Amino acid sequence: MGIKGIQSIIPKERQKDFIFVKNTAMHSKTIEKFSKLSKGEKMVWVARNFFDNPEAGLQVLKQYWNQDDALQKLHDEFIENTLSNFYLPFGVAPNFLINDELYVLPMVIEESSVVAAASRAAKFWLKRGGFKTEVISTAKTGQVHFTYNGNHQLLQAFFLRVKDRLVAEVAPLTTNMQKRGGGLTNLTLVDKTHELENYFQLSATFETCDAMGANFINSCLEQLAQSWQYVYKQDAEMQAQNADFSIVMSILSNYTPDCLVRATVCCPVADLEATEDLSPKAFAEKFVQAVKIAEASPYRAVTHNKGIMNGVDALVLATGNDFRAVEAGVHAFAAKDGRYQSLTHAKIENDIFYFWIEIPLALGTVGGLTGLHPLVKLSHEILGHPNAKKLMEITAVAGLAQNFAALNALVTSGIQKGHMKMHLLNILNQLKANEVEKLTLIEYFKTHIVSFTEVSVQLEKLRQVSTIN
Amino acid sequence: MGIKGIQSIIPKERQKDFIFVKNTAMHSKTIEKFSKLSKGEKMVWVARNFFDNPEAGLQVLKQYWNQDDALQKLHDEFIENTLSNFYLPFGVAPNFLINDELYVLPMVIEESSVVAAASRAAKFWLKRGGFKTEVISTAKTGQVHFTYNGNHQLLQAFFLRVKDRLVAEVAPLTTNMQKRGGGLTNLTLVDKTHELENYFQLSATFETCDAMGANFINSCLEQLAQSWQYVYKQDAEMQAQNADFSIVMSILSNYTPDCLVRATVCCPVADLEATEDLSPKAFAEKFVQAVKIAEASPYRAVTHNKGIMNGVDALVLATGNDFRAVEAGVHAFAAKDGRYQSLTHAKIENDIFYFWIEIPLALGTVGGLTGLHPLVKLSHEILGHPNAKKLMEITAVAGLAQNFAALNALVTSGIQKGHMKMHLLNILNQLKANEVEKLTLIEYFKTHIVSFTEVSVQLEKLRQVSTIN
Repeated sequence: MGIKGIQSIIPKERQKDFIFVKNTAMHSKTIEKFSKLSKGEKMVWVARNFFDNPEAGLQVLKQYWNQDDALQKLHDEFIENTLSNFYLPFGVAPNFLINDELYVLPMVIEESSVVAAASRAAKFWLKRGGFKTEVISTAKTGQVHFTYNGNHQLLQAFFLRVKDRLVAEVAPLTTNMQKRGGGLTNLTLVDKTHELENYFQLSATFETCDAMGANFINSCLEQLAQSWQYVYKQDAEMQAQNADFSIVMSILSNYTPDCLVRATVCCPVADLEATEDLSPKAFAEKFVQAVKIAEASPYRAVTHNKGIMNGVDALVLATGNDFRAVEAGVHAFAAKDGRYQSLTHAKIENDIFYFWIEIPLALGTVGGLTGLHPLVKLSHEILGHPNAKKLMEITAVAGLAQNFAALNALVTSGIQKGHMKMHLLNILNQLKANEVEKLTLIEYFKTHIVSFTEVSVQLEKLRQVSTIN
Repeated sequence: MGIKGIQSIIPKERQKDFIFVKNTAMHSKTIEKFSKLSKGEKMVWVARNFFDNPEAGLQVLKQYWNQDDALQKLHDEFIENTLSNFYLPFGVAPNFLINDELYVLPMVIEESSVVAAASRAAKFWLKRGGFKTEVISTAKTGQVHFTYNGNHQLLQAFFLRVKDRLVAEVAPLTTNMQKRGGGLTNLTLVDKTHELENYFQLSATFETCDAMGANFINSCLEQLAQSWQYVYKQDAEMQAQNADFSIVMSILSNYTPDCLVRATVCCPVADLEATEDLSPKAFAEKFVQAVKIAEASPYRAVTHNKGIMNGVDALVLATGNDFRAVEAGVHAFAAKDGRYQSLTHAKIENDIFYFWIEIPLALGTVGGLTGLHPLVKLSHEILGHPNAKKLMEITAVAGLAQNFAALNALVTSGIQKGHMKMHLLNILNQLKANEVEKLTLIEYFKTHIVSFTEVSVQLEKLRQVSTIN
């Protein structure tokens, strides 16, 4: 890349300091103190050493920068070494009736057909009483993990002796949370020596109100660990044992089986829709059978739950929550009984069709990115500024709706018909179809099966015809 | 919102057709045929019915639109009902030495400290031989799920009789994949009646080369299901039984324990870094202990693996793969032995420290968004256009690096110190600190512990001082 290219992305006042430009370090695939470089300098180093065409690659990065410098800076500072903004589509699914209130769901997802499926399910249940939800519990936990090879009874007695002091010493950190109705709600000593030699936990339970609470919990646990170690060293009886005692680590758990929400739909079997091949009753029975298969077969359950998470994660992202935390907690919950199973369940009882989900969702509506990312703030506004409990409910509904739409397709026309129809535009874009070609082929594929090969063939045909004309 | 606002986001030629503007439908929280509206029309409906301040909200959506209309249209068409682009930071982590080649990893992630942690781990192992990887297997599966209440031996015999025909009838769909070295590699009948009454699967195994293969596998399975049903109905012996036979659904599995990759680091224990409190040997032992705890305790394992997925998903997103699919497969794999466990393992053997991950990663480098999203294409370019196997290896390394950095922090200074330092800028932005205040407080917090409260207090102090001055 020439000097001109560099000038355009490195501020003038930095250019003279940018010794790397003429330095061999800029022509090496390793680099020291990379994080100290400016964004432009980082881009130049990456471009020079890792792009096929540095000019073109830099242009791709730059074309995604926001025009508003202050807004761009805000986004740059979310994480480290930011070079550009990665676009995920921000879409909406309307017509969600949840506990008799109407919502439009903001959804951030790159996979075609997810928003369409959510919208279809919402519309279907809008006419059948909508979704009902209930938060079952909101407790989160964290652990101080430590090893100890002394007498177990002595340790238990010691813990009970110092417990109040441990709680008191963490109080300065929990005061604000307590004012909001949360805080440290329980502290126990857990003997895990049957699982691993000499392994114990201090296990703490928290209520974190509208915060997801990771930073709060981790700060409390690190304080607990420090106090626990201190009192242990001060205690004559414990010291007299001459046992090994060592704090290994202190951290929250993303496994949150006691931060649980349920969402349900139900209607008379007769109110379900008949398809070409299935009566409402036959549809309901086949649907229940499909859910039972996901309860019985892990190979099916994983995909079944993946579909649920399409809906859940779209809400999690849009509302500025951490999808890795949610995913980990949800899938571990699906495996809690020793075999990986479906998160949704279905039954027919007295000619009523029931379909529901129970899912652990540790979400926040304050803290983290929620007050910082303008589109996240807008998502919360669209949802009517829900508190954490309400957001748990809405998110569970998104998962249930997604699963309803997926199973509905699977037990009737199959998943590919709808999915490939939704994916058609992506295929056409990839084949660089122009607008006229797109419209023609969208029309054509209303009555034909979409596949990448078939779209290529039809597009080729179309182009030959227009050449002849 | 006034007419002026509407004019700016709805194309002129559509305005006269936009009957909803003056229609009560635009003032209802439910809507029919929403997907048929233009983007501008959708925005107006959402704004009118769900924004606190429609003008301001529409401005937020619009400020994220790309200046380049064609590029924006491309992104709009990825999914349905797109209103804007949701920014996730696109960052890079340099200095990854993987099988003796140097990489910079493109990472898409909103969580602060993940890219910094990856970079730290990369630099640490750069000087100690780097990461070694190996793809163990690449098979994916899918199932035709069906019920049958007839004789089991008869069904098995019938399946063996028609198996070749089933495979032959799916051949037109697999030709292209076969040319690339993949295709349908195995087809079996699985009796699942011990798990659920009358439940069987046709289970198919596929090699999908450089494609993730979801569409390919689903299309094959739907064809298999159709053929299976047809031959069953044509077979005199099976019909004579008068048994119930019903295809429930056909779909790939996101559970991919046979699409597995391993990444490893190792070095002499003496080459590890001493900390203030720990010798290299004590550090190695504490690190191994922390991994053993994640193997033994599900509450710890979930968070441990969540950290791994911070790295994995950042690569998955940057390379245009589907993180829900990867998450579901990975966590189910972590639970495969009946208890949810750590994906990484560590040991000390002959004074050598070993740390490794085994993780199922069904990734693609062709198809889906990989050829469509300009930043995804650039990610593949940065990585040197890896094939699917190489991308599995790089992604596993990202997970292992992340976990190394997390455990490193956890067993030494604790997780909060580094994390909150990285999060400091977000807190300062949230408190609307100006550039001078930011620089002052970044300096201050180099030697003080970061918490939201403490940052607020210090910023307040600073502002009082500047008022006095």
